[in-house]
Amino acid sequence: MLDPASIKALTFDVFGTVVDWRSSILRDLGEFFAKRKPPIERDWGKFADAWRKKYQPAMERVRSGNRGFVKLDVLHMENLRENLAEFAIPDLSEAEIDHVNRVWHRLDPWPDAVPGMTRLRRRYILASLSNGNVSLMVDMAKRAGIPWDAILGSETARAFKPQPEAYLRAAEMLSLEPAQCLMVAAHNSDLHAAAKCGFRTAFIRRPNEYGKPKKYDLAADAGIDLDCADMNDLADRLGC
Amino acid sequence: MLDPASIKALTFDVFGTVVDWRSSILRDLGEFFAKRKPPIERDWGKFADAWRKKYQPAMERVRSGNRGFVKLDVLHMENLRENLAEFAIPDLSEAEIDHVNRVWHRLDPWPDAVPGMTRLRRRYILASLSNGNVSLMVDMAKRAGIPWDAILGSETARAFKPQPEAYLRAAEMLSLEPAQCLMVAAHNSDLHAAAKCGFRTAFIRRPNEYGKPKKYDLAADAGIDLDCADMNDLADRLGC
Repeated sequence: MLDPASIKALTFDVFGTVVDWRSSILRDLGEFFAKRKPPIERDWGKFADAWRKKYQPAMERVRSGNRGFVKLDVLHMENLRENLAEFAIPDLSEAEIDHVNRVWHRLDPWPDAVPGMTRLRRRYILASLSNGNVSLMVDMAKRAGIPWDAILGSETARAFKPQPEAYLRAAEMLSLEPAQCLMVAAHNSDLHAAAKCGFRTAFIRRPNEYGKPKKYDLAADAGIDLDCADMNDLADRLGC
Repeated sequence: MLDPASIKALTFDVFGTVVDWRSSILRDLGEFFAKRKPPIERDWGKFADAWRKKYQPAMERVRSGNRGFVKLDVLHMENLRENLAEFAIPDLSEAEIDHVNRVWHRLDPWPDAVPGMTRLRRRYILASLSNGNVSLMVDMAKRAGIPWDAILGSETARAFKPQPEAYLRAAEMLSLEPAQCLMVAAHNSDLHAAAKCGFRTAFIRRPNEYGKPKKYDLAADAGIDLDCADMNDLADRLGC
């Protein structure tokens, strides 16, 4: 049983947990390329999926020590250039490519995210614990009204989740024991890694993160402290 | 001339610039020790001054490389123990000493700070660039409603101002050029150090930071971009 009074801070995964990256990219790039002269038509859902698929391998090269730490914006840009070639999207200016890359700064929250987090923030410290870089999180939060108390994660730790340093450094920056931190994520692997570091864990169900029902991560694995329908459900469970 | 459109983020000194540390400590400790059993009476203004006087020398031991980076909470605690001895305050429990040390987490903003910063936040990213640690800044902001977009500074840079790393790492985390950042402080030395790193600079007049009119830092030195009466004046100057 999780005692809500034992928790001081909630640390959040962001992509997929707080924001709906796939629908946001589909909508944003669809509008951008439709208005462009000349317009470009592609399956932007497939484009988003292919871009996201390059995400873990790109971070893995950093995690494994094969390259030094770089911001996620840099990895997104490298992966975007590959994606543009694969989808045969020609002749974008560098300003256009930069605008497209920054779509990750313009993601929309799931409908329950900001209302639920606003309730949670009354009682708890809310910190991002994302592999996104600080400026990405700042831009996203400012645009979408996400009520962070602190932006932590990969760039402040210079380590990508699920490396233990990413979790442990966040707790250390909050001057908290890991057991006083509740990791909130829609991905069991993230929660298992946090739990190994001593964090408590809350799963948020995002069955349509990939646009169609997921084949895994539909519910919390055994050992996860809370299995929540959404952020409002989490706020209910914690008595906020 | 400073073009407000050239600035993307405002980075703030906090102790003395955003919050009135001396009055806050005087009030907080006065109330705490008056209610204590048995109560303890001292000149809490002098106590605050003596505590603050140990601040720069303690950071200097880190800046000079004589000791590794530690959070400001740790330096405050070491200095507090010395102060308690010097003011002959006996027999506090460790919980009481911890509560007293955390008075720096409970500082009140100057009356113009939150209203002015709320206006500034509509147009700019607001980030702390303080020698205070992250949890200190989070606790202070949550209690006082200070509207940060990001908490940066010594702990994220692992360097204390005026070391260049403190400023440069903040700009880097915001993915901005230093010239897109406006350092806001009530201390000319902080602004000169920021300017050397390429930041633009705004002075905020806090003549009573030490309870009585200061002998220096009454106005901006030559070369500082803006000399402001308070945060609302800064918001006016930037057209917010």
